[in-house]
Amino acid sequence: MTGKLIGLGVGPGDPELLTLKGARLLRRATTIAYVALHDVPSFARSIVATHLRPTLQEIRIDLTMTEAREPAQKAYDTGAEAIAKVLERGEDVICLCEGDALFYGSFMYLAARLSDRFAVEVVPGVTSISAATAQAVMALTARNEVLTILPATLPDAVLRQQIEGSDSIVIMKLGRHLPRIRALLTDMNLTATYVERASLPNGSVMQLDQAPEISPYFSLLLITKGNDPWLNR
Amino acid sequence: MTGKLIGLGVGPGDPELLTLKGARLLRRATTIAYVALHDVPSFARSIVATHLRPTLQEIRIDLTMTEAREPAQKAYDTGAEAIAKVLERGEDVICLCEGDALFYGSFMYLAARLSDRFAVEVVPGVTSISAATAQAVMALTARNEVLTILPATLPDAVLRQQIEGSDSIVIMKLGRHLPRIRALLTDMNLTATYVERASLPNGSVMQLDQAPEISPYFSLLLITKGNDPWLNR
Repeated sequence: MTGKLIGLGVGPGDPELLTLKGARLLRRATTIAYVALHDVPSFARSIVATHLRPTLQEIRIDLTMTEAREPAQKAYDTGAEAIAKVLERGEDVICLCEGDALFYGSFMYLAARLSDRFAVEVVPGVTSISAATAQAVMALTARNEVLTILPATLPDAVLRQQIEGSDSIVIMKLGRHLPRIRALLTDMNLTATYVERASLPNGSVMQLDQAPEISPYFSLLLITKGNDPWLNR
Repeated sequence: MTGKLIGLGVGPGDPELLTLKGARLLRRATTIAYVALHDVPSFARSIVATHLRPTLQEIRIDLTMTEAREPAQKAYDTGAEAIAKVLERGEDVICLCEGDALFYGSFMYLAARLSDRFAVEVVPGVTSISAATAQAVMALTARNEVLTILPATLPDAVLRQQIEGSDSIVIMKLGRHLPRIRALLTDMNLTATYVERASLPNGSVMQLDQAPEISPYFSLLLITKGNDPWLNR
């Protein structure tokens, strides 16, 4: 019997937003894997650190921050092979994923390389979107409303069309794109709520015109076309 | 000092998908509130039952299954006033919400009635969408892809336009709309993955053409325009 690859969503950042199932699986885990930027501690690992056994084996998949696909694909190839060696011994490997494992995450790149040879299971987690709406205490959608989730990396024309066609919008992966998105929304006569590091002690919520020029990766914009988060429902 | 209204997302159904924070808050809770269909036990309450103290006070907000808004609004008025009485005594009230508290939920109707008088806090939870993609082990979105979330209650013309304009689509609130949605997707030459009661012991995943005529409320459709959940990434 080979082991199982488990994609575990560890939630948006507050260690208490890990699920009970996640905590139980981690307490008995013998090998974990995670993707992290080169030279930077893994955020996903830091979220669950208190649950890990000291004798745990760790597979760290180092990525460099680059737009090129090839170096990342090589890192996933190497990481997947290291994971495969553990699975072949009959041991499970828990892959730690920020937020939810299957929502814009990197888990799919590992699963794609391993799911033909090994069983894959996913334990869902709280997404950054849920954390952001909670931090802002803002209901995005109700009843018959359409919700559209957009990566800020898309070109302006695509963003504009999508925003025009939807009731409520989340714009993710802001980073260096924030000034461009702000200009676009201003041009569209829309306001937005900016949420940074939702669920973390230094998390904050502000109107878009108060937001910094360059935002951290863990930031997003919430847009509802009504004027009030509650009373327009 | 008045108490705080806490909207707590209890997750999609598996009691282990409650967050550690949710479990901690519930263990010391003195009053909980929840919305439930008349004569039916509350699903949200059943998810967290093991964490509740026997002396707990419960505010049940009974809704009848109707399309009319007025009876529901009256029930929320009455429920909000019952909650307000507890908050005025300086005690917190935890409102249990299936999935996430601010994602197509009823918590906003209570918050709308109470947030001008009392502090409101939200503890996010795992959504039914995350549970469904986990159950199907299917990555909905990656990189620059657009994700659109659609209630099945929308008219065909709106659904068609939204589906045409997006990369990945989730259709929620299927219920009696499933045959109509199936006809629409067939006409659009699209397939979909049908997920029912995700994360529960009787949860199941199948291709849309295998799905039942009438689906339970806790079911949804996942649509990706590629052919393979992994290899098209």
